[in-house]
Amino acid sequence: MTDLSPYRVKEMTDYQGDVEGASTPMELYEKLSEQGGKVRSLKSAEADKAEVDAAVQLLLQLKMDYKQMTGQDYKAGCPPSVNDAAPNNGPAADGAGEDDTVDPWTVSTTNATGVDYDKLIVRFGSSKIDQELVDRIEKVCGQKPHRFLRRGIFFSHRDMHQVLDAYEKHQSFYLYTGRGPSSEAMHVGHLIPFIFTKWLQDVFDIPLVIQLTDDEKYLWKDLTVEECHGYAIENTKDIIACGFDINKTFIFSDLDYMGSSPEFYRNVVKIQKHVTFNQVKGIFGFTDSDCIGKISFPAIQAAPSFSNSFPHIFGSRQDIQCLIPCAIDQDPYFRMTRDVAPRIGYPKPALLHSTFFPALQGAQTKMSASDANSSIFLTDTPKQIKNKVNKHAFSGGKDTVEEHRKYGGNADVDVCFMYLTFFLEDDEQLEKIRQDYTSGALLTGELKKILIETLQPMIAQHQERRKQVTDELVKQFMTPRPLNFNL
Amino acid sequence: MTDLSPYRVKEMTDYQGDVEGASTPMELYEKLSEQGGKVRSLKSAEADKAEVDAAVQLLLQLKMDYKQMTGQDYKAGCPPSVNDAAPNNGPAADGAGEDDTVDPWTVSTTNATGVDYDKLIVRFGSSKIDQELVDRIEKVCGQKPHRFLRRGIFFSHRDMHQVLDAYEKHQSFYLYTGRGPSSEAMHVGHLIPFIFTKWLQDVFDIPLVIQLTDDEKYLWKDLTVEECHGYAIENTKDIIACGFDINKTFIFSDLDYMGSSPEFYRNVVKIQKHVTFNQVKGIFGFTDSDCIGKISFPAIQAAPSFSNSFPHIFGSRQDIQCLIPCAIDQDPYFRMTRDVAPRIGYPKPALLHSTFFPALQGAQTKMSASDANSSIFLTDTPKQIKNKVNKHAFSGGKDTVEEHRKYGGNADVDVCFMYLTFFLEDDEQLEKIRQDYTSGALLTGELKKILIETLQPMIAQHQERRKQVTDELVKQFMTPRPLNFNL
Repeated sequence: MTDLSPYRVKEMTDYQGDVEGASTPMELYEKLSEQGGKVRSLKSAEADKAEVDAAVQLLLQLKMDYKQMTGQDYKAGCPPSVNDAAPNNGPAADGAGEDDTVDPWTVSTTNATGVDYDKLIVRFGSSKIDQELVDRIEKVCGQKPHRFLRRGIFFSHRDMHQVLDAYEKHQSFYLYTGRGPSSEAMHVGHLIPFIFTKWLQDVFDIPLVIQLTDDEKYLWKDLTVEECHGYAIENTKDIIACGFDINKTFIFSDLDYMGSSPEFYRNVVKIQKHVTFNQVKGIFGFTDSDCIGKISFPAIQAAPSFSNSFPHIFGSRQDIQCLIPCAIDQDPYFRMTRDVAPRIGYPKPALLHSTFFPALQGAQTKMSASDANSSIFLTDTPKQIKNKVNKHAFSGGKDTVEEHRKYGGNADVDVCFMYLTFFLEDDEQLEKIRQDYTSGALLTGELKKILIETLQPMIAQHQERRKQVTDELVKQFMTPRPLNFNL
Repeated sequence: MTDLSPYRVKEMTDYQGDVEGASTPMELYEKLSEQGGKVRSLKSAEADKAEVDAAVQLLLQLKMDYKQMTGQDYKAGCPPSVNDAAPNNGPAADGAGEDDTVDPWTVSTTNATGVDYDKLIVRFGSSKIDQELVDRIEKVCGQKPHRFLRRGIFFSHRDMHQVLDAYEKHQSFYLYTGRGPSSEAMHVGHLIPFIFTKWLQDVFDIPLVIQLTDDEKYLWKDLTVEECHGYAIENTKDIIACGFDINKTFIFSDLDYMGSSPEFYRNVVKIQKHVTFNQVKGIFGFTDSDCIGKISFPAIQAAPSFSNSFPHIFGSRQDIQCLIPCAIDQDPYFRMTRDVAPRIGYPKPALLHSTFFPALQGAQTKMSASDANSSIFLTDTPKQIKNKVNKHAFSGGKDTVEEHRKYGGNADVDVCFMYLTFFLEDDEQLEKIRQDYTSGALLTGELKKILIETLQPMIAQHQERRKQVTDELVKQFMTPRPLNFNL
């Protein structure tokens, strides 16, 4: 996966000015396409922040000009003369709210509370996870819904009712999630899909496949094949430490599994036959200058959505429904997958989408593996956690204690409160914190202390579990083998 | 391989007329690109001949108009404003001689003697196999050169002197050839690269890998994965019947081997990272409407050119030179491969190119697996061979015996004589036939009889050897395993 976890870029988009040299909508469109490509290249090359920021500013400026000239939002792959349609399979790299950008490589917004997820649901053509669905999941699995469901962190879905209908008729399904291993360093945000997937595995008692797209990271980043594969192994240790059941979980690196499973490759080729360059251009914004590896990669992320990609688990069964928990930025891959599925005789995978995990500096700033202060890493010591939260966590509090007591804080933009929403299990305690912070009864320092005391034991426990993960255990999880599963 | 064998289309290009609606070179260029794509689609879908012919005529008309308007030849992937350069890696889908078209999917010419191969050498930037090189091969391997070398059937090369230099210093090399298994039916033309490769294997005593691109046939044709894989197995039996040494030969289907060798997949991904869509557009004429499988496929045909794709044969050695005997239409794949090789740290493969094998109806007509009368098939009975040669082989003889005796026949356009050039071993006998036919001493019926008596035992022997090929033997040839080879 380019990263199913919500680690995504959230950038300030403070732009103004005026762009010269484009006199027709088509010229402006071409400039925009080019600039979009440039931003992607800079980001994938992890270029200097200032350079990236400048390129993004120009991109946003061009988008404004485009809107002004054409009255339409710019959409990658849709030239100005083409009518804007196909909400279920349209280009992803346009503005969601006003200036939200959400695709597998870029997530940016101007909004301090983050991306406008309701608008994203409309644009992507998915469905909201409403209270009715949460209640139904509770009823079907017989367990209290996970806090990510209770709090709207998993907020959008495709076909979840269909999965539940079948499950009630004793037709099982399987889970698929993944990670793009671009470095050894994983932060707490990367855990979100895995924490939730583990819960789904436990309450539904179903098999799970986890894809590590080391081939994709090799294609996109300035890394060697060996480096990417090494990161896949290191990341697998952190994933195993989330507590997955070895009897129900298969973890694989693409670089290993593509070369170990003729069935997997056959599905990749089938998908590749049914997707044109025009389609991936529209969905992912690829250009003619992109390498052919990137262009064909989406098929490799799509293939695990089909059960016969894993004959050691599902035999030749090709009709077992797949459910994919992932961050919403990965949806373009699975819109493509769902479009192809019926044409090659397979069921469409269902999806559960999560929101993005904010950087310490706030919901508009970028969380970066190369900036140790942008998030809490899984290797941080208790002291580092304390320092980072105290020094870097963007606060919704007022400037002075007096003002804070008088006017109260803003929990909606406060990163400590956002993090507690992700990690504090007790609903009542969380609500009380929100009320006290909003009223001014709870000071920023006190709120930070609660977060620190929540994160410190959580990270320490993760580190303890990771220490127990031997090379032998990694090998077991990554060996294609039957799982405990009755077809 | 899209087909390393010389089975290619040779079409009459009788066009005239006038195309409306394109007022600028760019408009005309775009029309041409579109029409080129249409021709390719129709051909790959094996559309009705009349429909294909009409589309080809329009294409050729557009090319004439383009030349008239711009003063340049149309080249796929090179818009009119771009300067025409890079002869070593340029687009292949333009005219070679006057109207020759040679790329992995189309070979067409207006010339009764076939494609102008000297012009093709200039256009592709390869080197002619001259007498000096033939003599040198004889000296290095200590054997009389194969008739395909003596008679210019393998006529062009890349880096063959380098291969021989290294071999003289006891640095070995390996052979790579292949076939695109688009049906069970193979004809004698398909044997050319295999006959020659077997000779090379014997005289140099080196390992050989043979790729069956069943994945490629699935991507290009209206066939299922299972059908293509089945054809790969059937074709393998005919290939084994050519007499390859099981201790020095590994035959593989892509659909199997891609999913059996992480090392092979790693090389595929490395190549895919270093080739852009722009490049494959220029080299192969792909368009935005092509599926992403086609666009990324060239990397799969390239990967066997690198020795570490076969760790069971070469261990981790990545420096063993590869020599590829193939028909010239496959050269675009290996121009691409040679461009990528140094950038990923591998030696460039060397090449030996053959001419095309003519259809019975003549060097301009299409030889087609769906037209049983267009060639001699490996399953033909002695009677079928006799009938086909007598009824369908295009003759260079005169209309009446009297005229023939008086003026003589034209061996250069006579398909029976061409076939004897491929299959009759005795140089003196062949030369005598040529002289007698040209003088009129040898009648067309007599020439046909010589060919029939050459082909009948050859095909019968092939059928006998194929009968001996058991499923077990196929399995052995197709199992990744060490070969007799000292690194």
